[in-house]
Amino acid sequence: MAASPDHHHHDPQNRLRPWQVRLHEIIFEADTPIGKLFDGLLILCILLSVAAVMADSVESVRAEYGALLYTIEWGFTLLFLVEYILRLLSVGRPLWYATSFFGIVDLLAILPTFISLLFPGSQYLLVIRLLRMLRIFRVLKLVQYMREARLLMRAMKASVRKIEVFLLVVLILVTLFGSLMYLVEGGESGFTSIPKSVYWAIVTLTTVGYGDISPQTNLGQGIASLVMICGYAIIAVPTGIVTVELSHAYRNKNNTQSCPQCTAEGHDDDAVFCRLCGAELNPQSSA
Amino acid sequence: MAASPDHHHHDPQNRLRPWQVRLHEIIFEADTPIGKLFDGLLILCILLSVAAVMADSVESVRAEYGALLYTIEWGFTLLFLVEYILRLLSVGRPLWYATSFFGIVDLLAILPTFISLLFPGSQYLLVIRLLRMLRIFRVLKLVQYMREARLLMRAMKASVRKIEVFLLVVLILVTLFGSLMYLVEGGESGFTSIPKSVYWAIVTLTTVGYGDISPQTNLGQGIASLVMICGYAIIAVPTGIVTVELSHAYRNKNNTQSCPQCTAEGHDDDAVFCRLCGAELNPQSSA
Amino acid sequence: MAASPDHHHHDPQNRLRPWQVRLHEIIFEADTPIGKLFDGLLILCILLSVAAVMADSVESVRAEYGALLYTIEWGFTLLFLVEYILRLLSVGRPLWYATSFFGIVDLLAILPTFISLLFPGSQYLLVIRLLRMLRIFRVLKLVQYMREARLLMRAMKASVRKIEVFLLVVLILVTLFGSLMYLVEGGESGFTSIPKSVYWAIVTLTTVGYGDISPQTNLGQGIASLVMICGYAIIAVPTGIVTVELSHAYRNKNNTQSCPQCTAEGHDDDAVFCRLCGAELNPQSSA
Amino acid sequence: MAASPDHHHHDPQNRLRPWQVRLHEIIFEADTPIGKLFDGLLILCILLSVAAVMADSVESVRAEYGALLYTIEWGFTLLFLVEYILRLLSVGRPLWYATSFFGIVDLLAILPTFISLLFPGSQYLLVIRLLRMLRIFRVLKLVQYMREARLLMRAMKASVRKIEVFLLVVLILVTLFGSLMYLVEGGESGFTSIPKSVYWAIVTLTTVGYGDISPQTNLGQGIASLVMICGYAIIAVPTGIVTVELSHAYRNKNNTQSCPQCTAEGHDDDAVFCRLCGAELNPQSSA
Repeated sequence: MAASPDHHHHDPQNRLRPWQVRLHEIIFEADTPIGKLFDGLLILCILLSVAAVMADSVESVRAEYGALLYTIEWGFTLLFLVEYILRLLSVGRPLWYATSFFGIVDLLAILPTFISLLFPGSQYLLVIRLLRMLRIFRVLKLVQYMREARLLMRAMKASVRKIEVFLLVVLILVTLFGSLMYLVEGGESGFTSIPKSVYWAIVTLTTVGYGDISPQTNLGQGIASLVMICGYAIIAVPTGIVTVELSHAYRNKNNTQSCPQCTAEGHDDDAVFCRLCGAELNPQSSA
Repeated sequence: MAASPDHHHHDPQNRLRPWQVRLHEIIFEADTPIGKLFDGLLILCILLSVAAVMADSVESVRAEYGALLYTIEWGFTLLFLVEYILRLLSVGRPLWYATSFFGIVDLLAILPTFISLLFPGSQYLLVIRLLRMLRIFRVLKLVQYMREARLLMRAMKASVRKIEVFLLVVLILVTLFGSLMYLVEGGESGFTSIPKSVYWAIVTLTTVGYGDISPQTNLGQGIASLVMICGYAIIAVPTGIVTVELSHAYRNKNNTQSCPQCTAEGHDDDAVFCRLCGAELNPQSSA
Repeated sequence: MAASPDHHHHDPQNRLRPWQVRLHEIIFEADTPIGKLFDGLLILCILLSVAAVMADSVESVRAEYGALLYTIEWGFTLLFLVEYILRLLSVGRPLWYATSFFGIVDLLAILPTFISLLFPGSQYLLVIRLLRMLRIFRVLKLVQYMREARLLMRAMKASVRKIEVFLLVVLILVTLFGSLMYLVEGGESGFTSIPKSVYWAIVTLTTVGYGDISPQTNLGQGIASLVMICGYAIIAVPTGIVTVELSHAYRNKNNTQSCPQCTAEGHDDDAVFCRLCGAELNPQSSA
Repeated sequence: MAASPDHHHHDPQNRLRPWQVRLHEIIFEADTPIGKLFDGLLILCILLSVAAVMADSVESVRAEYGALLYTIEWGFTLLFLVEYILRLLSVGRPLWYATSFFGIVDLLAILPTFISLLFPGSQYLLVIRLLRMLRIFRVLKLVQYMREARLLMRAMKASVRKIEVFLLVVLILVTLFGSLMYLVEGGESGFTSIPKSVYWAIVTLTTVGYGDISPQTNLGQGIASLVMICGYAIIAVPTGIVTVELSHAYRNKNNTQSCPQCTAEGHDDDAVFCRLCGAELNPQSSA
């Protein structure tokens, strides 16, 4: 990646031209007033354009304001296209940006309008623009929020493997339960095939319970009761996993200092002395 | 606020007339027998008036007892109006009371009856009187309950920022899932617009599952299954957050130990030395 | 209570006649083989009689086996009546037993059959006999189970006050939300009165979501979305409370020993030495 | 078991013939490339055969590809039969394998096809083949996954007794609530018998809420509200149990510190001295 082709005829890291540096400051940073203004306007545009897409999907609104909404859609798309090009121009390594998470999202936020020329209906995919909203954290410069988000992310990441194991077990369970119900209910009352019955099992085990498919025979209702009551304990598992991981991530947040005398960890944020041996902690090393 | 206009021609803080002091004792305090009696009667009136409003909304009851309920409604409203005026008169700084949480609730508990003269139907807003019920904690003088309530509040407040981050992610998710389902289900089986589909996604992700909108196509049911199973892990997050914060608030409450040197509190259960000044804690005083 | 009238003409505590002592051993104790046999038979009878009551409620079963089930019902009732009288005779202080939890349950398990002579239908209340099943813990003599049950009970009891505060807030919330929905939906789609709307709010907030009442207007669905998403955080609270209390009860279970040197608590079940100061713990004092 | 009859005329533990050793390596081990290939193919076959069974249950698919799917089904069954026989041949103690969990699952994965010759429809039980998928953990050789799975299992096992107590209480509750609703709703709106009403109580208490049975009378809706709100606290219990047990299992896993004197593990994070022998722990080795 470090050797990626450079389309901009300058040393990518140091020799950005002054207008590029200025553009980068406006578009990518949120420290200067004009940078903040840019990001604020951007978020406003995202919200407005998504609102337009959502309004366009409502039959009665489209009937009356269809042409207007079509214009707005193209307006925002061209605006975002210009912004995307400016972003490419202002960074030293355009490919790095283009292949980053936000670079791909920015591109996906433009494409559907053009694709809808070929495949009508795909413009509704424009709601993917909402993902650009995640920049809001940077704009608001709320370090606290970033920290909380990172905390949640860390807990989710730490839970991933446990949750994968859990999901595999759940998937096997719902397939077995679904097949059993298909045999018991005999194709009636919505259990018309195993896939449909598995869908029912998922709806039931997650306690969503639409009721579009529900057992009618006595045996079927008995098995369903079993699924629900067993599901009780099963539902508790992901909650337990996330709680434990969150608790762990939370404790570690307060945990970055260790006692210079006894190396004990887990001190509170405002701790000055080690709670186990009484030695003075090094306050500078705290996060 | 300290310089707020004083409509009552006396030094607001010290020179309350004797009847004001007495009134204040009855209305605002709950220490004396008469103060307790007043608060007890007040809560009874609140409950009765809310019951009357609710009964009035039932067609068959209104048909028979409409006139009676109308009288009761006006009776309680005038009673609460008198009480509101007495409250204003009895406090040294009426504006402080009028702009406090309970002052605003007390006013809102009177207004709907008068507004209903202009806009019929708004009298049902009188159920807001229920908020006055929150005074019950003070009446019952159950310090324990107050402590528990404060504990819950502290945990909720500490969770607020994390839950905001979480809600933003959930909102983006339901919009993306809802739009996808709108494309997949193609306007059928209730998915008539993106807002409706987003509503479905919320109903599904929160496991409420009314079933008034539910996917009928195979692909739609597949995506719905994905939403539910993914929602599994997502639902676990707020529970995890609140549990961890509650656990934290709880632990902080529970440690009755205070440092003999600097009187700091909030030590861990197994702390041996004060985390703030390094003095040895008094192990016997730990709970 | 200690001076309660004694209908049995003997010192209630010491001078039970031999046949009473023997009867007490059989009926109330579960240590001797015959005591175990008695309790086992009792539980079998309870299960059979409840099964008979449930079967009797099924139209098609009653049509065919109504007379048989009627006989069975009276048979078990007379059996339980004899047992109840024997229990009264075998204890030193019959009133103590008669007014205890199990004494009342035992009486309630007999009455409905007699009441059904006056009010047909009340015999279905016989399912209350199930509460007698709680004796199963004693029968199985599974001390471990008792310990777990006590652990759960302790955690529930410790949570009671917090959950009461929480329930009061929830009740106020559902009333406010229900009234708002009644105004917004205007009596349509099931929201025919405030009590019905409050019922809907409870169904939604608890994520049960029957779907018999569900908002149809756009504004109504918007408010419902708000209820559900807000309900997210609210649902987390009781789970958090119970988890924290369970965790506390659990830790205390392992907690009964304290270090003789540093009084530290919270040692593991198999700890021999204090983990903070290294002093030997007193193993005999562990539970 | 150690003296179980040996049908293969050789010392079961040491004198396996070379081809048996080789076969065992391929089929039972996943260390060698060919062993990995075998297991990978096996999992592919399981997934394909289950997919075929599920597809066969869809009316429209069966109408068109019924014959093909029938052939595929028999193909996979014979393949698994051969594999089962090879497994029996390659192990030293065939009975040990045949009576192990995977041995029984492997047999159950073959039988339904043969049984379906007598009882058509039973071939859908072939989805039990999914249980063979649990071998995937061994194939992927992801020790981490195994550890997570074992962690979850340990937490579930530790919760079992508490959850049994909890389930007994829940079962008694739903029977009582169901019977009460049967009396109140009087056989209308789905509450046609006590078993049906108990089914409704389970559906409601677990917050699944299909809505096929839902109370229509005012009193019934009132009781249902009570069930739901009470169910709130009840639902919290299994989550609390699993969370606490997971937290316990997790903490025990995480502490990598072992006593330098007695090599005991499972110390608390802030332990300074070994809780088993009193030796000072090595603070540097803590995670």
